[in-house]
Amino acid sequence: MKSFVEMMKEAQMKNQPIITLLTDFGNENGFVGVMKGVILQIVPQARIIDITHDLPPFSISSAAFLNDWSYGYFPVGTIHLCVVDPGVGTRRRILVVEHAGHQFVAPDNGLLTPLFFQEEIQVYHAVNDRYWLDTISQTFQGRDIFSPIAAHLANGIPASAMGDLIDNPIRLHIQPPKVEHGMIDCHIRYIDRFGNLITDLDRKTFERWSEECGCKDHEIILLFQDQCIEGISHAYGERKYGELVAIFNGYNRLEIAIVGSNAAITTGLGLDASIKICASWVV
Amino acid sequence: MKSFVEMMKEAQMKNQPIITLLTDFGNENGFVGVMKGVILQIVPQARIIDITHDLPPFSISSAAFLNDWSYGYFPVGTIHLCVVDPGVGTRRRILVVEHAGHQFVAPDNGLLTPLFFQEEIQVYHAVNDRYWLDTISQTFQGRDIFSPIAAHLANGIPASAMGDLIDNPIRLHIQPPKVEHGMIDCHIRYIDRFGNLITDLDRKTFERWSEECGCKDHEIILLFQDQCIEGISHAYGERKYGELVAIFNGYNRLEIAIVGSNAAITTGLGLDASIKICASWVV
Amino acid sequence: MKSFVEMMKEAQMKNQPIITLLTDFGNENGFVGVMKGVILQIVPQARIIDITHDLPPFSISSAAFLNDWSYGYFPVGTIHLCVVDPGVGTRRRILVVEHAGHQFVAPDNGLLTPLFFQEEIQVYHAVNDRYWLDTISQTFQGRDIFSPIAAHLANGIPASAMGDLIDNPIRLHIQPPKVEHGMIDCHIRYIDRFGNLITDLDRKTFERWSEECGCKDHEIILLFQDQCIEGISHAYGERKYGELVAIFNGYNRLEIAIVGSNAAITTGLGLDASIKICASWVV
Repeated sequence: MKSFVEMMKEAQMKNQPIITLLTDFGNENGFVGVMKGVILQIVPQARIIDITHDLPPFSISSAAFLNDWSYGYFPVGTIHLCVVDPGVGTRRRILVVEHAGHQFVAPDNGLLTPLFFQEEIQVYHAVNDRYWLDTISQTFQGRDIFSPIAAHLANGIPASAMGDLIDNPIRLHIQPPKVEHGMIDCHIRYIDRFGNLITDLDRKTFERWSEECGCKDHEIILLFQDQCIEGISHAYGERKYGELVAIFNGYNRLEIAIVGSNAAITTGLGLDASIKICASWVV
Repeated sequence: MKSFVEMMKEAQMKNQPIITLLTDFGNENGFVGVMKGVILQIVPQARIIDITHDLPPFSISSAAFLNDWSYGYFPVGTIHLCVVDPGVGTRRRILVVEHAGHQFVAPDNGLLTPLFFQEEIQVYHAVNDRYWLDTISQTFQGRDIFSPIAAHLANGIPASAMGDLIDNPIRLHIQPPKVEHGMIDCHIRYIDRFGNLITDLDRKTFERWSEECGCKDHEIILLFQDQCIEGISHAYGERKYGELVAIFNGYNRLEIAIVGSNAAITTGLGLDASIKICASWVV
Repeated sequence: MKSFVEMMKEAQMKNQPIITLLTDFGNENGFVGVMKGVILQIVPQARIIDITHDLPPFSISSAAFLNDWSYGYFPVGTIHLCVVDPGVGTRRRILVVEHAGHQFVAPDNGLLTPLFFQEEIQVYHAVNDRYWLDTISQTFQGRDIFSPIAAHLANGIPASAMGDLIDNPIRLHIQPPKVEHGMIDCHIRYIDRFGNLITDLDRKTFERWSEECGCKDHEIILLFQDQCIEGISHAYGERKYGELVAIFNGYNRLEIAIVGSNAAITTGLGLDASIKICASWVV
């Protein structure tokens, strides 16, 4: 027979849904604290985890990148609340998306685009104001609409109760990396505060490709604009101060950096810029 | 009959008191982490929520504004720990205040002034060192006194056990907005890091007044110093870059901002400056 | 007989292990959020408390100071995860340390040095990859190795399961303060972002010594380089703007500061600089 402690532990795990928060609200104005208050009023046993609130203001593509990267590290059943919402107060739609056992709440502005490349995804248009706060402001719907929706989902209300399925969510004009025999075409999707340029190419995809090509890391060449980098490094320290380096980073994504400097400023590369990768003997 | 999970959920909600933290300590020095350690030693099941720790150092009025605005979004029973305490180590008193089912712990320096405009409020002078840490420093009483008091309250110790009722807490020299027929006089109570000037006038009070006056949002005029703003906007985007805008913001308070610029610097308005509001046909 | 709520409360306290996090990762990149996701996958009922993530990048000695200072404020049984890891991806070892009922997980780079001055300490070399994530990156082992180890410890897996005892962890070249009759020799161990210089001398050690010497606070003299400070202050306000002040601070450690200015820049003192303390009549 199970002990009380064991039963408690199981029930606890069932009962303590996780809600992650990803916003561009900053931490100094109390906005995030108040969102947590609203959530705990509806689902007092929730565990609320901050991904970050320091996204570049209004940067939908940065939010898209960080959400796509981070959600898979959380347990199935987690609810991910993503609010970068330059259209707050306009008629933009609000989405609840289900994929791979995770739920996502976000404005319909392209923030969830990377999920839309996946199969088995449901997209709901949340219109049922029964699951919102009674009073809705035009300026802070993260508190008034998004947080209550996430909290009700955490309480077990099905996504289908929030509104109808739709098939036309707004998508950013981005594509996953194009992997061909002999060539990968990937793109910069995130620039961190140090100016490091982070692409959408993940290590596994790269390793499968380079094995097929029979191409070692030091035989790779990266091409962008009129510049190039020879070889994939395994530590920043492999290159000299001021030199360009290509490395798989903490996100498991290919990154272009400059040792001790700002790669975004030095290279002039911005979001969505194309990086081509091939074997050095091809060029 | 209730299932084990249901009983657990109810008991959990009863057992997991919420404590919010509002300080000017910053996040890089570990002070806030240690306060949480002290709290969890006394009430291990507490849920601790940060409002912010990035208040302007020693800004009692900013703390007063943010606490007054935020507490109502938390469940009844929440304990709000507010430490902006330039008088730490002096003989300033420490208060436990009860209002509307919430409890507040703060130094007696005016931080809780907006609560003192309310009816049905109890103010206790916390002197009972049984509920403090054994060793009290002169420089970090947020850890040594405030956190343990909040934790013991969360454990169900009544506020009256902390010390006696008093009726003379220190008040900031602020008044709520003066609402008269044809005119509102409100004041700037918070300036955020972008220089936006946030008043104490909340949307509901304003809407009741403007309805009585028969005055639409575009017919409003705001007067301050030798300047004025015509009309209340509903989105920052309604005005041109560099133009003054009056808007009800994420705090549901009237804000004066400059699109793309710093209103505090440009207007020269500071904390406590007066803003007068009337119908444009009155002027 | 115990009520259900009482049983629940007890079980809850047993079941909700506390894990603290201390890193130099910053908060804007989502790294800390993802570490929490990894932890909650393994130990869903954990309470995760941030000490800080804004340590100066790669500053092992700052991490050593903050961990040594903070851990004792947490309940026995807490697990402290400290990741300042310039050697990530190299062959540096990973340690699990047990002391005074607390457990610590950190790279073997000296970060835990202050603990090594204590008696009754066990140091394990964590090599058992059964308790790591399946895929290990070269750049983010805070997520892939450290977090899962801490989570499994929180689940009750003994430290001895992680690897063998060792007796040669790497130590920083630091010593505790040298307390002699008539003289203390202490060192600067932490410099905060305001340039305040924080030593390793704690108030209790100082008070025991000054009592033995029969020396009052205003009769103390601090000597460093070619400069000196007369007297220990009890509040920054006791000295004039621009003047050097010695004070026991929020860390309960002796601090050298300049009222309204940056002591690190003005004095030229850096980490590990020596500060000598004696009675003024000795000099």
